[in-house]
Amino acid sequence: MGSSFGNLFRISTFGESHGGGVGVIVEGCPPRLDLDLEEIQRELDRRRPGQSHITTPRQEADRVEVLSGLLDGTTTLGTPIAMLVRNKDQRPGDYKDMAVAFRPSHADATYQVKYGIQARSGGGRASARETIGRVAAGAIAKQLLRKVAGTEVLAWVKRIHTIEASIDPQGVNLADVESNIVRCPDQQIAGRMVERIEAIGREGDSCGGVIECVVRQPRNGLGMPVFDKLEADLAKAVMSLPATKGFEIGSGFDGTRLKGSEHNDSFIPAEDGRLRTVTNNSGESIVIRVAFKPTATIRKEQQTVDSDGNATTLAAKGRHDPCVLPRAVPMVEAMVALVLADHLLRQQGQCSLW
Amino acid sequence: MGSSFGNLFRISTFGESHGGGVGVIVEGCPPRLDLDLEEIQRELDRRRPGQSHITTPRQEADRVEVLSGLLDGTTTLGTPIAMLVRNKDQRPGDYKDMAVAFRPSHADATYQVKYGIQARSGGGRASARETIGRVAAGAIAKQLLRKVAGTEVLAWVKRIHTIEASIDPQGVNLADVESNIVRCPDQQIAGRMVERIEAIGREGDSCGGVIECVVRQPRNGLGMPVFDKLEADLAKAVMSLPATKGFEIGSGFDGTRLKGSEHNDSFIPAEDGRLRTVTNNSGESIVIRVAFKPTATIRKEQQTVDSDGNATTLAAKGRHDPCVLPRAVPMVEAMVALVLADHLLRQQGQCSLW
Amino acid sequence: MGSSFGNLFRISTFGESHGGGVGVIVEGCPPRLDLDLEEIQRELDRRRPGQSHITTPRQEADRVEVLSGLLDGTTTLGTPIAMLVRNKDQRPGDYKDMAVAFRPSHADATYQVKYGIQARSGGGRASARETIGRVAAGAIAKQLLRKVAGTEVLAWVKRIHTIEASIDPQGVNLADVESNIVRCPDQQIAGRMVERIEAIGREGDSCGGVIECVVRQPRNGLGMPVFDKLEADLAKAVMSLPATKGFEIGSGFDGTRLKGSEHNDSFIPAEDGRLRTVTNNSGESIVIRVAFKPTATIRKEQQTVDSDGNATTLAAKGRHDPCVLPRAVPMVEAMVALVLADHLLRQQGQCSLW
Amino acid sequence: MGSSFGNLFRISTFGESHGGGVGVIVEGCPPRLDLDLEEIQRELDRRRPGQSHITTPRQEADRVEVLSGLLDGTTTLGTPIAMLVRNKDQRPGDYKDMAVAFRPSHADATYQVKYGIQARSGGGRASARETIGRVAAGAIAKQLLRKVAGTEVLAWVKRIHTIEASIDPQGVNLADVESNIVRCPDQQIAGRMVERIEAIGREGDSCGGVIECVVRQPRNGLGMPVFDKLEADLAKAVMSLPATKGFEIGSGFDGTRLKGSEHNDSFIPAEDGRLRTVTNNSGESIVIRVAFKPTATIRKEQQTVDSDGNATTLAAKGRHDPCVLPRAVPMVEAMVALVLADHLLRQQGQCSLW
Repeated sequence: MGSSFGNLFRISTFGESHGGGVGVIVEGCPPRLDLDLEEIQRELDRRRPGQSHITTPRQEADRVEVLSGLLDGTTTLGTPIAMLVRNKDQRPGDYKDMAVAFRPSHADATYQVKYGIQARSGGGRASARETIGRVAAGAIAKQLLRKVAGTEVLAWVKRIHTIEASIDPQGVNLADVESNIVRCPDQQIAGRMVERIEAIGREGDSCGGVIECVVRQPRNGLGMPVFDKLEADLAKAVMSLPATKGFEIGSGFDGTRLKGSEHNDSFIPAEDGRLRTVTNNSGESIVIRVAFKPTATIRKEQQTVDSDGNATTLAAKGRHDPCVLPRAVPMVEAMVALVLADHLLRQQGQCSLW
Repeated sequence: MGSSFGNLFRISTFGESHGGGVGVIVEGCPPRLDLDLEEIQRELDRRRPGQSHITTPRQEADRVEVLSGLLDGTTTLGTPIAMLVRNKDQRPGDYKDMAVAFRPSHADATYQVKYGIQARSGGGRASARETIGRVAAGAIAKQLLRKVAGTEVLAWVKRIHTIEASIDPQGVNLADVESNIVRCPDQQIAGRMVERIEAIGREGDSCGGVIECVVRQPRNGLGMPVFDKLEADLAKAVMSLPATKGFEIGSGFDGTRLKGSEHNDSFIPAEDGRLRTVTNNSGESIVIRVAFKPTATIRKEQQTVDSDGNATTLAAKGRHDPCVLPRAVPMVEAMVALVLADHLLRQQGQCSLW
Repeated sequence: MGSSFGNLFRISTFGESHGGGVGVIVEGCPPRLDLDLEEIQRELDRRRPGQSHITTPRQEADRVEVLSGLLDGTTTLGTPIAMLVRNKDQRPGDYKDMAVAFRPSHADATYQVKYGIQARSGGGRASARETIGRVAAGAIAKQLLRKVAGTEVLAWVKRIHTIEASIDPQGVNLADVESNIVRCPDQQIAGRMVERIEAIGREGDSCGGVIECVVRQPRNGLGMPVFDKLEADLAKAVMSLPATKGFEIGSGFDGTRLKGSEHNDSFIPAEDGRLRTVTNNSGESIVIRVAFKPTATIRKEQQTVDSDGNATTLAAKGRHDPCVLPRAVPMVEAMVALVLADHLLRQQGQCSLW
Repeated sequence: MGSSFGNLFRISTFGESHGGGVGVIVEGCPPRLDLDLEEIQRELDRRRPGQSHITTPRQEADRVEVLSGLLDGTTTLGTPIAMLVRNKDQRPGDYKDMAVAFRPSHADATYQVKYGIQARSGGGRASARETIGRVAAGAIAKQLLRKVAGTEVLAWVKRIHTIEASIDPQGVNLADVESNIVRCPDQQIAGRMVERIEAIGREGDSCGGVIECVVRQPRNGLGMPVFDKLEADLAKAVMSLPATKGFEIGSGFDGTRLKGSEHNDSFIPAEDGRLRTVTNNSGESIVIRVAFKPTATIRKEQQTVDSDGNATTLAAKGRHDPCVLPRAVPMVEAMVALVLADHLLRQQGQCSLW
């Protein structure tokens, strides 16, 4: 447990930032699904470092190798699909100071307290490299969802620091999201976001923000009472990503300021027999928002404690993202797609026999 | 799955609002724990309907019977602890209209779409009665946490509709929370909250708000990389409660407006060898907030669709809470305690052998 | 864990021999299954004590109450089905000596060593009463399997002590099995088995034997590579029953004396497109055999150790079965049906989407 | 699921016989365990093909690479340990005929029926290569068990075809087992076993037999009521190995011919406070036996059906083991060790808090 996620469509990730590599096993994928491997690679490219000047300049190609589970390298056999990305750029020297002085608000100290040991370089398992396995697996989940129900999962940056965009979740498309390096579909706001990240990065500081994600055309009936409600599993999924601090669905925190008569989504008859609602506070299509804190590792000098318990200061020397959000967009999509794929199979298992 | 929660300290709930009863099995509780059964009952009393004039006037005693797992009715055997609360007040007549017309933003329609069938009265599994099992199990988890690590889990109402209290999570205590019927430890604000609920209730309408919860003195090292982080499991836990729409931990959504240098919790040396932090954005003790939407079932007439797909209107006749938050406080505490108890056992299993 | 079994069709049992009752929650049952509750009760009647003079004379009606999960008491809602059987006949006095002196080859000592505590009377969780939940849940699984695939699960006593019957698994039917109190479909051998049990019982001793079970018309494709093979899950299922010491499938231990050319089941073309085999060593229909040891609790005086670690002797005073096999027949059927129902849903979940 | 095994100490295997490689992720291993990697390799060497003239002449070095989870390549971090063995010798040509004609009593047809697709060469997931991951993970489990409780897991060949050895499970040691190529610690019987395998192999035929395994000095208290009894989990573990047909523990099937007074293990006082028994029918140390059928793939011509449903014949051309037992010895040990390691952590998690 801990490094596995899902029930029927289940993934297990492995790997530290430095070492042989990182990867994932996808268990339970339906057989006879024709995979587009290039699409998996494209998703990994969206999360890789060095993709633009507002991300860390580390250059990691992150080429994925599929080790198992496919016939002729394309069609799923129904057996575990293992994927491996080798670690290339290790540069342990940059992290040397951190091995001694715990990075404030970073998982360094947490690992040491929990396990009595920790990977000495590069963040170990807490490194963002761990999400490579999630994104690769999520790319398979997306292809499954598209084939079965035409479901689309799409995320974008809604806010960077204090600069917020207002996006219509029904109208946004992937091309708009990918048209700029910050992944905000409002091009004008996107420009201001980039400038803000540049400015904060120059200070040796970092910033956070909010990512929004829509699921369009989810299959009817997904989600299970009472603990595995879709909102519960989605919350867990995205709150397991590094640096997340909050989760909202539908009307979220703001909706709690409405009265029931204002908040309820009235049902209206629809021609196709589906239930339609006038508004979407509770969710015909699904909209979530995720809060990401500012990157913990910064170049500015900070007060901390070293592994001997003595007060000291720390200024990070590694090449870190001043803002994780542009690279976190495909991570959010991946986690959401994994939840939906799992629930698709669970729904199919229990409710499609007659 | 779906009705079970946790891994080592694991609960499974059962029961619809109407029928033989509701309850829970608690699996994995350590043996030789002396349980205070009255404390379990007291927690159930905090969530039962009819406890004050701002909750539903339904009178349900909700007396719990422990069916198994105890020696001499007090000491855990290490085997499953089954607890049952009989359903007393059924009054199916009040729900008759709802069986036909789907309640807007209620789980009625969801169950019908998913299963092709639904409990015809009282909300079935989606009824708040289902949380009886959670609260009873959570009361055991609390006693376990207190014994092992002196851990305390305490929640309160932070906001009702637009009326918000500012509470210091380190200083609040149970007596303050329980000193008024809305469960807000700021007595003056609490009074205004009660008035607001009364006013909205008189309109036949409903309101939501925010519950805050603190975990003081959590055992060191809880939480697991990478999917079962404490924040991820806490998010799932509370987002599985009825009517929740959002989750925050530590600095939450507001923290995303800070820079890294402002947000990071600097470590400082502590005399007891524990790691201390100057601030608590990332969480030495744990503070979470949960958004609850306004109750879906209201007396005001609403537009909806009946089970034949025809447009109709609905005005609920049942005795429903105009605001679920006062009764949801023990539910939030229970879910948080269940997560911590589970992680306590998981940490013990992996990391205490030498 | 430990008291739960299955993945998608999942049961959790609870209850000690003495206390409020024993029972089970069945999670994951498909919705809209019309249950025959009388059939569930009939299965419980097959396992209840006092059913004949060769079982324990304890009289326990074991009437099952369904607490949840059904609409109008007959149709599954897709939500957890909880079933409860109250404990009636407690007579703790009979067990008083055993609470002190550990019963040789009984689970008494095991519980004490594991948990540092044990139920003082009646065997606690190790009592055969725990199997009530399994049999009740298995009765639901059987109805599910019959509806979906016409699958039939049938077991019988193949050997008592040294008296063995030779039964054709394809030809035997329930009426033959139930036509005598020992549940061996060969009526002549059955008579000799009854005499043997009577004779051994008169000596204050006990005996074991072998139960055989067939699954006819299992749905194609059940079982999963590599750990959850059908034979692996069936082995676990029946080896979790009290007093079991061995498991065989198909040709079993004897088949290991054959050469590959003798053992292999050659495929032959079949008119219905299914794959047929000339022989059935590997299993077109599934045949298993389970070894049950002689009942541990006997009236004969035995050498043992008391809870203070001193040597003593013990002669059981309770009313115990001299041979568990007649009552174990429905238990074996139940466990086998539970495995098949779970794999049915798992197969459906992964492999029926297109 | 399906390709994962265990709860707290949990493994997930991946890989087909042909393709990028086979391997395993080990989750939940305690941190700060100093691993002897050479010992892992030695276990793999015991199972690899080409190790002697009575196994398949395929030469596969099966060098394991540890991809993650270790500090300085030796000490566990508490995070997932991924291990990979590349596929070297593929020779798909040899398997061409089998892709069309289903091998009698082989998993070919099973995969096709279940998934509607199958790996066309080398057995895919059903290949014995899949057990590489189990053996590598089992080698870690063994080192954990040895460190924590001095537990030893040792297996040997007890019977080949009709040639049976009588071995004292308390006295046998690894050197005796490894002193001959068939892995039977009775050297004289071992010689006869080798001759039998040679003779049957020359006929183009195959044979099976029985492997026995002892666990010496298991930690007290392992195993959980009621479904996860040690015997149940051991049964599942070994019955998930390819070609197994039966499982026995302690007195097994033969013990069912004894009376209770003969079978019960009387307790006797012991100086060290542990409970001792006069005999070992129920298990102070644990002894199990596993039945392996004759290898399905043989050079002799067999009757079968091709993928078009037409009758045909098949004579295997690949280089197959005439008898799997010598190579299955480390597989049995691995599966047993994995069960014990998992139960060790589960026991620690629930029962060691006070």
